[in-house]
This record gives sequence, C-alpha cells and structure tokens, in this order.
Amino acid sequence: MRAIISSYVAIEAHQITLLLFFFSLCLLHSINIVEATVHHLKWEIKYEYRSPDCFKKLGITINGLSPGPTITATQGDTLVVQITNSLITENTAIHWHGIRQRGTPWSDGSQGITQCPIQPGETFIYRFVVDRAGTYIYHAHYGMQRSAGLHGLIRVLVPEGTKEPYSYDEDRSIILNDWWHKSTMEQSTGLLSLNFGWVGEPQSLLINGRGRYNCSLAGTSDVCNMTNPECSPSVLTMVSGKTYLFRIASVTSLSALNLEIEGHNMTIVESDSHYVNPVTVKNLNIYSGETYSVIVKANQDPSRNYWIALNVVSRKPATPTGTAILNYYPNHPLNPPPTSPPLGPLWNDTLYRFNQSKSIKSHPNYIETPPRTSDRLILLLNTQNKINGYTRWSVNNVSFIFPTTPYLIAIKDKLRQVFSQTPAPDTYDYKNYDIYSVSENPNAMLGDSIHRLEFNSTVDIILQNANTLSNNTSETHPWHLHGHDFWVLGYGLGKFDPRFDLKSYNLVDPIQKNTVAVYPYGWTALRLRSDNPGVWAFHCHLEAHFFIGMGIVLEEGVEKLGKLPKAIMGCGQSKSLGGS
Amino acid sequence: MRAIISSYVAIEAHQITLLLFFFSLCLLHSINIVEATVHHLKWEIKYEYRSPDCFKKLGITINGLSPGPTITATQGDTLVVQITNSLITENTAIHWHGIRQRGTPWSDGSQGITQCPIQPGETFIYRFVVDRAGTYIYHAHYGMQRSAGLHGLIRVLVPEGTKEPYSYDEDRSIILNDWWHKSTMEQSTGLLSLNFGWVGEPQSLLINGRGRYNCSLAGTSDVCNMTNPECSPSVLTMVSGKTYLFRIASVTSLSALNLEIEGHNMTIVESDSHYVNPVTVKNLNIYSGETYSVIVKANQDPSRNYWIALNVVSRKPATPTGTAILNYYPNHPLNPPPTSPPLGPLWNDTLYRFNQSKSIKSHPNYIETPPRTSDRLILLLNTQNKINGYTRWSVNNVSFIFPTTPYLIAIKDKLRQVFSQTPAPDTYDYKNYDIYSVSENPNAMLGDSIHRLEFNSTVDIILQNANTLSNNTSETHPWHLHGHDFWVLGYGLGKFDPRFDLKSYNLVDPIQKNTVAVYPYGWTALRLRSDNPGVWAFHCHLEAHFFIGMGIVLEEGVEKLGKLPKAIMGCGQSKSLGGS
Repeated sequence: MRAIISSYVAIEAHQITLLLFFFSLCLLHSINIVEATVHHLKWEIKYEYRSPDCFKKLGITINGLSPGPTITATQGDTLVVQITNSLITENTAIHWHGIRQRGTPWSDGSQGITQCPIQPGETFIYRFVVDRAGTYIYHAHYGMQRSAGLHGLIRVLVPEGTKEPYSYDEDRSIILNDWWHKSTMEQSTGLLSLNFGWVGEPQSLLINGRGRYNCSLAGTSDVCNMTNPECSPSVLTMVSGKTYLFRIASVTSLSALNLEIEGHNMTIVESDSHYVNPVTVKNLNIYSGETYSVIVKANQDPSRNYWIALNVVSRKPATPTGTAILNYYPNHPLNPPPTSPPLGPLWNDTLYRFNQSKSIKSHPNYIETPPRTSDRLILLLNTQNKINGYTRWSVNNVSFIFPTTPYLIAIKDKLRQVFSQTPAPDTYDYKNYDIYSVSENPNAMLGDSIHRLEFNSTVDIILQNANTLSNNTSETHPWHLHGHDFWVLGYGLGKFDPRFDLKSYNLVDPIQKNTVAVYPYGWTALRLRSDNPGVWAFHCHLEAHFFIGMGIVLEEGVEKLGKLPKAIMGCGQSKSLGGS
Repeated sequence: MRAIISSYVAIEAHQITLLLFFFSLCLLHSINIVEATVHHLKWEIKYEYRSPDCFKKLGITINGLSPGPTITATQGDTLVVQITNSLITENTAIHWHGIRQRGTPWSDGSQGITQCPIQPGETFIYRFVVDRAGTYIYHAHYGMQRSAGLHGLIRVLVPEGTKEPYSYDEDRSIILNDWWHKSTMEQSTGLLSLNFGWVGEPQSLLINGRGRYNCSLAGTSDVCNMTNPECSPSVLTMVSGKTYLFRIASVTSLSALNLEIEGHNMTIVESDSHYVNPVTVKNLNIYSGETYSVIVKANQDPSRNYWIALNVVSRKPATPTGTAILNYYPNHPLNPPPTSPPLGPLWNDTLYRFNQSKSIKSHPNYIETPPRTSDRLILLLNTQNKINGYTRWSVNNVSFIFPTTPYLIAIKDKLRQVFSQTPAPDTYDYKNYDIYSVSENPNAMLGDSIHRLEFNSTVDIILQNANTLSNNTSETHPWHLHGHDFWVLGYGLGKFDPRFDLKSYNLVDPIQKNTVAVYPYGWTALRLRSDNPGVWAFHCHLEAHFFIGMGIVLEEGVEKLGKLPKAIMGCGQSKSLGGS
C-alpha cells in the first residue's frame, strides 16, 4: 500500500489517470492478495581500511560495511538502490546476481554490457523487481572490484501464506569469500602484464567477512593485529532442538570451497533460488556465484560449540581452513570447540564434487519441464592461451575484451562500429581437438564479438573444459549467466560429443540454476529460453578468469526495449549534451 | 609546410575555400618566417610495477615511462596528444601546466573543471598550441594521480633565428619529485577519513625519476633491491669549459625543495617560462609546480664528478637528501664524488627562501608592464579547518569540492543546478582575523562556488597564509593558476592590509609566473588580466592540500566560446545519446 499512497501524493495534476491507476492497482491488489513493497536503499561506496582477517588493507565498503548490508525483501517487491560512488578516481557498477531483470536489463549492473560505469561523485539508481523467492548475491561487476570486498546478500522471502517445501524455525545467512593482502589494482596489473603475475592462492578464507591470518607471517607488526575485534570469528547461534535454514552464498574470487558444520549434516533444499529434491550431505561443495539453502538441525550435544569449517577444494590448498563458530545457546559464543576444525574432503577428489553436483535435481513438486528440443547448439571450449605473449583465457579461441561503449547501448542505438559485427563462434573443432593436451591455440585472439539469439528460442550451451597451459592440469570453472536461469541437463567427464551425449540429457527433473560448475576435463550441458530482452554476460565467475577473457555475451530481443535510461550513458560513444 | 600539405590532401571537395586557405597560410608563412609543426603523440596510460627508489610498487606510466616522455616543440607548434586510458577501473585527465590554452580551454585537462575524466578504455585527444618558449610540465589532474608518477616535461624552444637573453652550448632537463611507498589510493583514503591519515613525509626524493631508499628499512627483501638498475642514480654529463642551460621543474606532491650543484653556482635566467633579470645563487629553492632555467658553467676540476643534491626545506625533513651525479666527461658517469652531498640551507630559514623569491624579477629587455590599477581585489585567506570532524583546507572558509559536472560544461550549457550560483567570497574579515593563532573557523564549509570575473578586466589576488590547526605553525603553499600568467606584485610577511600594502607593489619589473609561493604567515600579491575565455583552477599545488579543499575556480568569458567538444562530456549531467 505504501507505493500506492506515495504515488497518490506525487501525482496531483492528472487526476483521471491517477484514479484509473489507483483502481487498477487496487484490483490487482485484491486479486493477488499481495502487498508489493518498494524498498529504497541509499548506499555510499568507498575505500576504507579494514582488517577482516586481522591484516589491515584497503577494502571497498558499502555504508561502512564489507560485506555490504544484507537486503531482505519479499517476492514481488521492488528494490530501488541509490548508489553514490565515493571511490575518488575509480568507477564502479553493481550486479544483482541471480535477479533476472525482466524488463529492466539496464539494471543488471554489468559494466560495459548493460551500462557505463558509475563515475566518482555520481549517483546511480538501480531499480528492479525481485520476482522469485530465494537467496541472491550482489557484487561489483567492474574490473576486479568484487575482490576488494564489494558484495553482499539478498534474501527474498516467499509471500506470506505461501508454503516452502521444507520447514525451519529461523534462517541464518552465510557469505563465503577468499581474501588477498595485495590490492585488487596490484592483482589486476599483474594479470594484464606481459610478465604475467598470477594472483596466487588467497591469504585467508572469510565467513561473513571474518577470517584469521597468522600475523607472525606479516613482517611489520603495525599492519596485522590478531586482537583486532574486526577479525574475531563469525558466530552463528542455535538453540538446541530447533531447525535452521542456512542461506549460503559464495562470492570467492578464485577458490572452490567445501563447507562443513562439525557434527551436523546439511540437507540441501534450494540451489540458486530453486527448490531441490532434498539431498543430505556431510559437507557442501560450493562454487563462486552459487547459493544454496540447507536445513541444519540443532540436534547435537548442546553443552559445547562446533566448528563451521571452510576448506579450499579443486586447487591445491595453500590457505588455512576458514572457521566460524556454531554456538549452542547459552554457551559463550566465543568458546572454542574442544576439537579441531574439519579438513573437508580431499582437495583433488573431483569425482566427489562431480557426484554432489549431479545429485542436485529439481524438487518433484516444483519441476518446470524444459523444452524437449532446442533450436540452437552452442559448444564452448574453454582454454588457457598465450596471445601476443599475454596469458589469457579463451572461449572457442576468442578471449573476451569489453568494448568502450556498452553492448546494450550500441545495439539499441545501432552503433555498429562499437564492437565486431561478426558473430562469435558457436562451436570448435570438437572432432579433432585434444582436450587432454596443452594446446598451441595458434588462432586465439582478443575479441568483442557476441552471440545474438533469436528471441523466444531454445538454446543449448555445452561448456567444455580442457587442459590448461600446464601439463596434466584442468580446472573447475563456475560459469554464471546473467538475465536467466538455465536448466542443467547434464554433467560429463571427458569430451562432449553432440553425436552421442545429447541422448544423456536429463529432461525429466533438471535443476535450474544461474551458476554451474564445469569440472576438469569435463563438460556441462545447459538449456535456456531466450525470452528476456537484453544483453547478458555469461562467464566464468572466478574474478581473475573473466578478467582475462573467460566469458561470452548473449543478446536477445533488444529491439523490443523502449528508450534506454540516460543514466546508463556517458562512456564511449554515449556522451553528449550539445557537444560537437 | 607539413601542416599545409596535409591539409591540402585532406580537403578535396571545397576547392575554392581550400585555395583561399592555402594562400592565406602562405601569406602568413612568408611574413612570419615560421614553420609551425603539428606534433602527434600517442600515449597509453597504465599501472606498472616500478622501483624508482629501489622499492617496488605500482606506479602510473606513459608508454611504459615514469616520468613520461619529454616533449620537445618550438614556440607556435601544435601538440596533439592522444591519450588512451588503460588504468582498468580508474579515470584520468592530464593538465598541461603553464600552457595557457588560449582558444582551447577544454584541453586544460582539469577534471571536474574543464572536462569529464577520461574513462578506462577511452581515448581522448588534447590539442593545443604552445605559444611561448620555455619549460613546462604535464601531469595528472585527477584525485592524487600525479603522486603515482603521471607527469613529465615539455621543452618549448624559441623559433629558429630568435635570440634568448643568455647563451649556452647545450640544455639538460631535470624533473624533481617526492615519492611515497603507500599507494595514492591509500594516501587519499587517509586524507578523506574522519580518523585523518596524513600522508607524512616522503620516503625518497627523485631526480629524473630516480632515488635511493635504504632497503634495510623495508622489512621484506623481495620488494626492495638496491642493485635494481631502475634506481641507479640519474647522471647529467658536462664537458669541461662548456656552458649549460638546466631546465628544472618540480612536480612534488608535498615537499618544497632546495637544489644544489656541488661546487657550481647557478644563474637563474628563466622562471615559469619568463625571462629573469639574471640572479646567481649557490642553490635554488623550487616549489611544486614551478619551473626554472639556470645557467651552469662546467668550470670546476674536471677530473672528478660532483653531487647534484636535493633537500627538503620548509617542512622538517624526514627524507634523505636526493642525489644525482654531475659527471665531467670522460670520467665514469657512476664514479661517486669524493665528497658528501651538500645538505642545503637550514630547512626553517624562511627568510632565505623569501628573499630568493623576491629577487626574481623580469629581465629588463622583456618587461610586460602590468596595468597600473586593478578593477577588483580578491583577498584569499588560507586556513586549515575541521569541518564536521574532517580535516580540510579552506579559502575564505570555503573548502573546495568538485561538482559532478565540470564547470565549463555547466556554465556554457547553463546547467545552474550543477554548482552553487552564490559567488565565492572575495574577502575575509582581515581587520579582525588573527593569522598567528589556531582559528576555530566555526563557519567553514564545503563548497563549489566560484569567482566569475568580468571579461577583459584586471584582477588582483592576495594570497594570505595563517596559522594551521597546530600551534605556532604556518606552511609554505605554492599556488598555481591555470590559463594565465600573473604578475607577482609583491611578497610580504605578516598580514596583508589593503589600506597600506597596495602601495608596496612592484609595478616596474614584476616577473610573470603561473605558480608562486606564499610564505608562512605571509602574503603574495598577484595581478592578472581576465582575457582568456574559460574556467580556470587556482589552487595550492601540493597534491594533498588541493585534494582536501585548498583551491578556488575563476571563470571568464565562457559565453564567447563556441560549441564545446563532445569528447569532454559524459559525466554528471552530460550523458546522452537518445537516452530518456
């Protein structure tokens, strides 16, 4: 009702229009029994000194916080987030990860794709509807700013009266991250240098923005202080006998993680805001960009606390286990558990992780059946390459670079010179390519070409992993798609061959996701409907991988959009105001 | 001739216009016997790891260099500098310090005043005429990026056949800087924090981009290496018996410097590109933003080398003497002199520095007499203040902040809401203000108001220094004016009183400058003609001082300008391209 009243106050002149508007809203209101709220948030983004793992360095905060404030809304609500950029000389943009932005593609927050960056001193307003309950992430989508701490959680609750397919007494939020002591500017400069500087393994793992670095390794004492309250461990409190929903999100820049709650099983009930046919696990593998909700019962010895343990998997760990405390009330929250934190599964047990991914299927009562067939097959080979001596990631031998004018503006305003009009390649030489060897990729090149999709068509995308530039090495890449959920039709190890593997698709109860893992030397098959007019990034969610080219861009139905908001303009070809 | 021929090739259609143009150029050509050249430069700006004082940190380079390339041109030439910003997430802008930009105020490079910042990935072209011979500087004019190493020299030679009022065999360039190991982002975050973090004294002084930090102080050994060739000392070679013109510029962020060439006098012949009635000194005080040319004779024992020594003055030094080697050919360039480097004058001998400034007057053959009277007197009190708990510098109790849309665009396009339309204050309560005490300045505030000048009028500006927030402390501030040279009519110690001190003005042979020192508890009086349509910054050239408010903005004759170039747009209110 708040929205209706404020509209009433604002519009005085056009009374007839107003009355019609008012009545139609009331009508809507009485039919749906839904009270959609507009949440107005004002955020200031700036650099501040922070010590999340006891080591003091510059981080990016929102209203003084990193992670930023957790947003809570109800399905159908509108979020209006007014961002003021106080980063001094750096631009920014914020992506609302998992929100499909139906009708508001300019609010997706992908710099270079859906908007120009927000410049220092400017205020930009993101306005969009959260149209499906679940757990979402927001984070910077510009350079490597997500790594600087610019991220947070969105909890979207089901409307009152709507039942979820599980029950719990309370929910808790857990945001997971990896953390470096070098600045993101130092990291990104290294990645773009001819003398390639890899970011290396993180110094710490953070749970709800808190970790613990061994300050004796820090050299000078003035930058690291283990008694700093900023790095006292994160605590999640439970009451014995109660049931909890843990909403878990990973915003890591690099690390694949395994989360284990000492002595407590977790039942996975939701993944990327879609209900899962419940799966009970001892520990949860979670990739950057994924969200999971798990049910945890407070059914252990209530006289002590337990470890929540976070371990690196997939890459050989060089980072200590991240820990938080699961506190049984009324024990003191900081009472350390009498045990050692769990060390998680073997980091290189790919099959363990592969099988956990495969076990995630749609809840039987919430299956949205995918179309039986697709109109187009896009086969994407992920490779690491050298291009003119620079280390890059490529997709079908194209290493993605951004145009200076965002695609959304360029396509809508027909600025053909902004990016290559040659379509990005839909396939690679899958018959002959050896995914198990270091490839010379002699034809790899930088490129800004994109995949334009026929509107309202069904598209299959196969992500294929291969060997990196090092012998006997292939990595796990979590790929994230903007503007859509896709069906996960299958995972495989080895090379996907469309002549045979199409038949293995799960068309019965596939889960829908927006971020999905592709395993070493493996493939993952997705299906999506191109029904959301806009331009959408699809990329590896590892910050350092997308930053050096591991992504593509999809376009659909931009011609159906109305006039674009002026606020997204200002860069490249979109400057103006009477200039000559 | 090159410019004429290329015009001929470019214009084919309008042949009559072309012919007229061609003939008029030829006419001009034959009258002036001047061959104006257009210099096309292509620069890429990016972060790179550098060790200018042996300590490895990120710096901003131009085509891989910091200091950037030295530009050499002849009076009357046009510089066309195409800047590509590869700073990843940071914008930039480059100011051509000392170039008056007559007819091209949009090429002054002051972000927020004459242009929107150049965004990452964009290319921006500065185009302007160097209309007076001398030594100039270029440097970043955005945030504190100058401190990151983005600066260099411009040598503008007299036209062939024109005599200078001094003779020499060769010239040498010397650019002086101070250098910190913290990043500029760390420095600027400290300055903007409620818990004020001052930048402190620099770790090193650099001569031509080279200094020497004592790596044993650096803690970890991997960031500091005293055998790194990047920090081997700068060498200036002379041949015994010859005479040299040393072109000296200071781009320091904080330090006032004293330069001494062991055993050699210097004769000051030029200051800020104006000929000086020659003054011979043992050592030269030089403030940030100033340039001097001095004559040095190679008249000492040629069997050894000599120190060029750089010492901090005005602030209590906590930085080792910066050194370079004056090499007498054919001694080995790196043979250390058998002596200790000179330590310069006492750092707190204000009168010594004050008197050297007062001794700089126009060369008698090149006096441009100032107007006898002025139309307006602007009296500017410089104070350090607390505003809402933040430490700031203010001018007449206004601490400068930038609007989001540059003034030039806002004024030309009549966007009145962009900045305060109330004029900035022209005076302060000089009768009652006690410049010797810490002031409470209860009325100080942040502000973006400006001084609008009547076009073609004569304006006097008095800069008045006072006590800082610390007892018995007042600092030296070098103030730099864009778009103009001003006459320096007088320097004083104590409080300027317009009732008496106007009579002390030197109206006979004042030097013209663009940057001038104001001494502790002292004043400096300037006169200028508002004859250059544009919007011009006037500010303390210490990076950390202007950054927290120590500057004002002057406007004159913007209504006389034609359409502004689209390239300077894109920020604040100047976004567009069919947006709604």
